[in-house]
Amino acid sequence: MKIFEYPDKPELKRILQRPLFNTDNLYTTVKSIINTVKQDGDTAILELTRKFDKIRLNGLKAEASVIDESENSISPELKKAIEVASENIMKFHKSQIAEPEKVETMPGIQCWQKSVAIEKVGLYIPGGTAPLLSTVLMLAIPAKLAGCKEIILCTPPDKNGNINPAILYAAKTSGVTSVFRCGGAQAIAGIAYGTESIPKVDKIFGPGNQYVTCAKQIVSSKGIAIDMPAGPSEVLILADETANPDFIAADLLSQAEHGEDSQVIMVSNCKNILQKTLSCIKKQLDVLPRKSIAQESLKSGALILIKDYNEMIDISNEYAPEHLIISTNNYMELTGKITNAGSVFLGNYTPESLGDYASGTNHTLPTNGYARSYSGLNMDAFYKKITFQESTPQGLKNIGPYVELMAETEQLDAHKNAVSIRLKDIKYGNQN
Amino acid sequence: MKIFEYPDKPELKRILQRPLFNTDNLYTTVKSIINTVKQDGDTAILELTRKFDKIRLNGLKAEASVIDESENSISPELKKAIEVASENIMKFHKSQIAEPEKVETMPGIQCWQKSVAIEKVGLYIPGGTAPLLSTVLMLAIPAKLAGCKEIILCTPPDKNGNINPAILYAAKTSGVTSVFRCGGAQAIAGIAYGTESIPKVDKIFGPGNQYVTCAKQIVSSKGIAIDMPAGPSEVLILADETANPDFIAADLLSQAEHGEDSQVIMVSNCKNILQKTLSCIKKQLDVLPRKSIAQESLKSGALILIKDYNEMIDISNEYAPEHLIISTNNYMELTGKITNAGSVFLGNYTPESLGDYASGTNHTLPTNGYARSYSGLNMDAFYKKITFQESTPQGLKNIGPYVELMAETEQLDAHKNAVSIRLKDIKYGNQN
Repeated sequence: MKIFEYPDKPELKRILQRPLFNTDNLYTTVKSIINTVKQDGDTAILELTRKFDKIRLNGLKAEASVIDESENSISPELKKAIEVASENIMKFHKSQIAEPEKVETMPGIQCWQKSVAIEKVGLYIPGGTAPLLSTVLMLAIPAKLAGCKEIILCTPPDKNGNINPAILYAAKTSGVTSVFRCGGAQAIAGIAYGTESIPKVDKIFGPGNQYVTCAKQIVSSKGIAIDMPAGPSEVLILADETANPDFIAADLLSQAEHGEDSQVIMVSNCKNILQKTLSCIKKQLDVLPRKSIAQESLKSGALILIKDYNEMIDISNEYAPEHLIISTNNYMELTGKITNAGSVFLGNYTPESLGDYASGTNHTLPTNGYARSYSGLNMDAFYKKITFQESTPQGLKNIGPYVELMAETEQLDAHKNAVSIRLKDIKYGNQN
Repeated sequence: MKIFEYPDKPELKRILQRPLFNTDNLYTTVKSIINTVKQDGDTAILELTRKFDKIRLNGLKAEASVIDESENSISPELKKAIEVASENIMKFHKSQIAEPEKVETMPGIQCWQKSVAIEKVGLYIPGGTAPLLSTVLMLAIPAKLAGCKEIILCTPPDKNGNINPAILYAAKTSGVTSVFRCGGAQAIAGIAYGTESIPKVDKIFGPGNQYVTCAKQIVSSKGIAIDMPAGPSEVLILADETANPDFIAADLLSQAEHGEDSQVIMVSNCKNILQKTLSCIKKQLDVLPRKSIAQESLKSGALILIKDYNEMIDISNEYAPEHLIISTNNYMELTGKITNAGSVFLGNYTPESLGDYASGTNHTLPTNGYARSYSGLNMDAFYKKITFQESTPQGLKNIGPYVELMAETEQLDAHKNAVSIRLKDIKYGNQN
């Protein structure tokens, strides 16, 4: 990782280039997994689990007793942390629920919108050595809050065929209705199309490796809704001379430890802070358990010296970071100028970790520049917003002639006639 | 079109089967068009326009003078209709704008969400003999209302290289910032990737033929946002003995005239109404200019006799119609039970045409059963919702230990350290 001083536009573009994230090369493999699952259901998933997860399972569904017992494997402290995080996530997501009022757009024409929960949602939680319990909370709590009737969770089993009790406990407390021991593209295919034991869901949420990402992409091109496109995680930090280099170094490293393809960028108008941050990174890196991953990620990272706050904001909006930390004296002023970002962390005492776990905001966020057009996960993602309208005979008299003319202009006479036939009835007929 | 009496579940499933809408066979052709446009920009689009639209253009962008002059080709009556429809669309979409309050999830932890307009949006308006001016209003008005800075419209030119003045006039009055004379997959590629004259947009909206749909699908798999997946248009009508067969016939036909693959379904607990509707259809069909299209569509349509209101609702929610008309005595009661639908039209005096043109609701709606997981177009589609959070030192002290423990559980020590390093500083350091 090095400091780039006052890069010109082309150099800046090169520095901010994201690592390529392309799953095209997996397409054939993943497509074939999906087709196998569509055809053979549970049998296919069990066989693929034997092959990829190295475990022969008897069934995919986690038994209620196993989920209940998970509680006994969790420390009271972790339970309390999960409780606090859940309450905050609940509070923040609840604040997003608002039903607009009915609108009388013209006399006699009432229009309204109603949010109705998506009935069945599927949540994917990646496996690995550590249990990603925070992601369970981030996906299941808003689903439950929206009123989704079935909340299905899939996660790969470990080599003994078990699911980490922290995952099971988080699932239980946050409203998941059933848990399945399966992972990878086969799990996505399972919830997308349904099997003997796994219900077909209406929308799929959650992160995953490249196979999972590719599978989500494929099923989404067939009309099955997914949360958002995926890419490597990233953070951009804007800092001036009031920032704390030790804090920034810690934030950059917390992003870098995610994966070798994570991107970490710092932009500052203060050379001193950039230099100090660089040496803090070196110092902090040495004691990290995930040092080698972070080190690899830092290779594509950058510390960028720029002229002023305006340039900071321009770079940030152009880059459209998943996570944006603003550690400047005037952070509230800069906040108003942010147009593209997933989630923004303000001041010196708001590390990204707060939002990753417990402050209440969602940690499922648009990466790879998708923040230009996608929102982070929020309550909208768990609802369909259905519109309703009701016209009185008088309302139809008021609006009808305009509709008739527009339909005529579009040469859609049957559209026009659906109005005309009613207007005639109102004039000569026996409506109330 | 015929009446099915009390079909059993398998028969019902067969009747409600949607026409296959698969653009896989176009993939290679469309992919190659996209690649050509990515590589050769305007030159490629001009050449493809010559080939497909049979016109040799000098440039793609519609001149400001041409747009201004469109006003002179529009009748005062149509202007008035556009004005009324625009006001209603504006009113209804404005009612959807609501920013949630800041939430203090824990003492010292403030979280909030802010809607920021997507900066550049691209609107596609299909060509053909009639100008689809209503679609211009449905896409451009909410974009303008959200605050999108660039609103780009693409539509194919006619054989003389012109765009219908009604399209231009609607574009001008609803806030479109530039108009390009191009259509088909090449237009989608143009706005998705940008050319010398066409700006690259962040999100693409609008209907189109199978080439356009396929192109939207392809660019969306590359992370360019689109409004929603597309399929043939459809209506489901629920009716009891209080419905008016002439009105229902007109509504069914207004859907049927859209295209040969449009699906029209009526479900009723009253055989008499079904029989009368069938004869009204025959009568009304004869005088329709688009009779042959409607006739073809009706072949896959169905009039279904069922037992009671519960069955009506079950069928409707299972089918998840794009348009749902409820012409029953108890329509308000049934409305509360609707879980899957795009837009719902209530009572005997609310034809679908109102929502298609002028009542205020959006006519861009999920087809093909996508209403199970997708909303019709609404203000959400034109915003990113960005989350913000700010913690005071005391806030960090309150939440920090929980975050540390959760990060530790997930074996993400750098995430933990980003909190710990600040907590240490608060305890021993010199923060304010």
